[in-house]
Amino acid sequence: MHILVTNDDGVDAPGLLSLVQEMKKLGKVTVLAPDRNWSASGHVKTMHRPLRVEKHILADGTPALASNGAPSDCVALAVLGIVDEQIDLVVSGINPYANIGHDITYSGTVTAAMEAAISGIPAIAVSLHTLADHTGKKDYAAAAIYAKIVASLVIEKGLPPQTLLSVNVPSLPMNEIKGVQITRQGLRVYLDELVSRVDPHGKPYYWIGGEFPSYDPVEGTDSGALDRAYVSVTPIQLDLTDYKLLEDIKEWNWKN
Amino acid sequence: MHILVTNDDGVDAPGLLSLVQEMKKLGKVTVLAPDRNWSASGHVKTMHRPLRVEKHILADGTPALASNGAPSDCVALAVLGIVDEQIDLVVSGINPYANIGHDITYSGTVTAAMEAAISGIPAIAVSLHTLADHTGKKDYAAAAIYAKIVASLVIEKGLPPQTLLSVNVPSLPMNEIKGVQITRQGLRVYLDELVSRVDPHGKPYYWIGGEFPSYDPVEGTDSGALDRAYVSVTPIQLDLTDYKLLEDIKEWNWKN
Repeated sequence: MHILVTNDDGVDAPGLLSLVQEMKKLGKVTVLAPDRNWSASGHVKTMHRPLRVEKHILADGTPALASNGAPSDCVALAVLGIVDEQIDLVVSGINPYANIGHDITYSGTVTAAMEAAISGIPAIAVSLHTLADHTGKKDYAAAAIYAKIVASLVIEKGLPPQTLLSVNVPSLPMNEIKGVQITRQGLRVYLDELVSRVDPHGKPYYWIGGEFPSYDPVEGTDSGALDRAYVSVTPIQLDLTDYKLLEDIKEWNWKN
Repeated sequence: MHILVTNDDGVDAPGLLSLVQEMKKLGKVTVLAPDRNWSASGHVKTMHRPLRVEKHILADGTPALASNGAPSDCVALAVLGIVDEQIDLVVSGINPYANIGHDITYSGTVTAAMEAAISGIPAIAVSLHTLADHTGKKDYAAAAIYAKIVASLVIEKGLPPQTLLSVNVPSLPMNEIKGVQITRQGLRVYLDELVSRVDPHGKPYYWIGGEFPSYDPVEGTDSGALDRAYVSVTPIQLDLTDYKLLEDIKEWNWKN
């Protein structure tokens, strides 16, 4: 079993180290991760510039590879040949904040797993659900253990082509987590606000600011599970067609 | 009717100008687009750096705004208040290459429309289907006219919340296009290859290279329609949950 570990926070992020240490219990681990933070960077394929891949050492001495590409580039590079040995599973994370609802298409953590799924490799994205006020303690221990539980099951059972699992784990001690819920994608509530400032030269600039996003804790959804101290496991596929709307708009007058 | 036009190729791209000229026939147009090319940049929310918005003039004299943010940032900036007047419709494009199959999550053109949909604004992404060998002539005239047809219908009929239409138009004269097909997302066939080179200082670097992606021209899909010289209109929604897999993995042994 050969597992590729990547993330979107950069190769030295503590969440990656926790994940690597648990994944080593399941097989051989190769790390190829970005050399910097790519949060909310989306699904990237870097074709307009060449990419570098440098040898790196994690804090616990594990050899790793670091690239100046995006998380999805790291997966593409590994699959296309930077990593010689066949990759059986890609695990991305652990992201320090939950990836729920519409976070999915923004998230470098999840889009790295998407890249693997598109390449025909089973993939898991793992994120931590910390308190919305940014002050929440980031306890990766339980998330890493749940990542191992999910990865073991994916290794045993497999995943259908072009699918992945997005796993979100409350930032709580193991004994305070109530178990796993299989969930659908819920609803993020973005609280973005435009913050306008003026630079020292008199020219305006803008931050996309505002409060940390909230969520609608509907039962059966990713956010509902997390809100009740459960781990959420959301199966993700990549056909975004709206089949209901497809039938509806066939009735529109297209004979213009 | 107030229409925001953006793209992922940059504010001076010819496809944007064609689109703006047709959209002006439907209402007031505001242009807020990236100041550079963001192809295959994915769904971005730029929060780690401030963004600039500069006044710009298109080649035909139309006033525009250009930002150093990604396509989705341009939509966010407009919605959050850079543009005073309420936006009724966002139209993104015209991208010089088709956005079909799995292109959807990579595409700056489509993710700009996703950002609008998440913000509750109806949105359309428009792309041109040129020949796969990059030598195909880019004729935006018909694509702009079809963008207007689709936009008129969206204005008349509306779209459900959190949905958008992805429109792909063959790069052909109007009289060679056979009409519109309402399609589902098809299958892109990526032909990426790793191209390894050594820099003048003896260090390796890598291009994600290979041939232009192909597609599986299955009838009823975006690629199938384009292959038969039809315009494809694909309704897109943002719930990526795999509902079949959700039921299946509930049966896995989660009691570890």
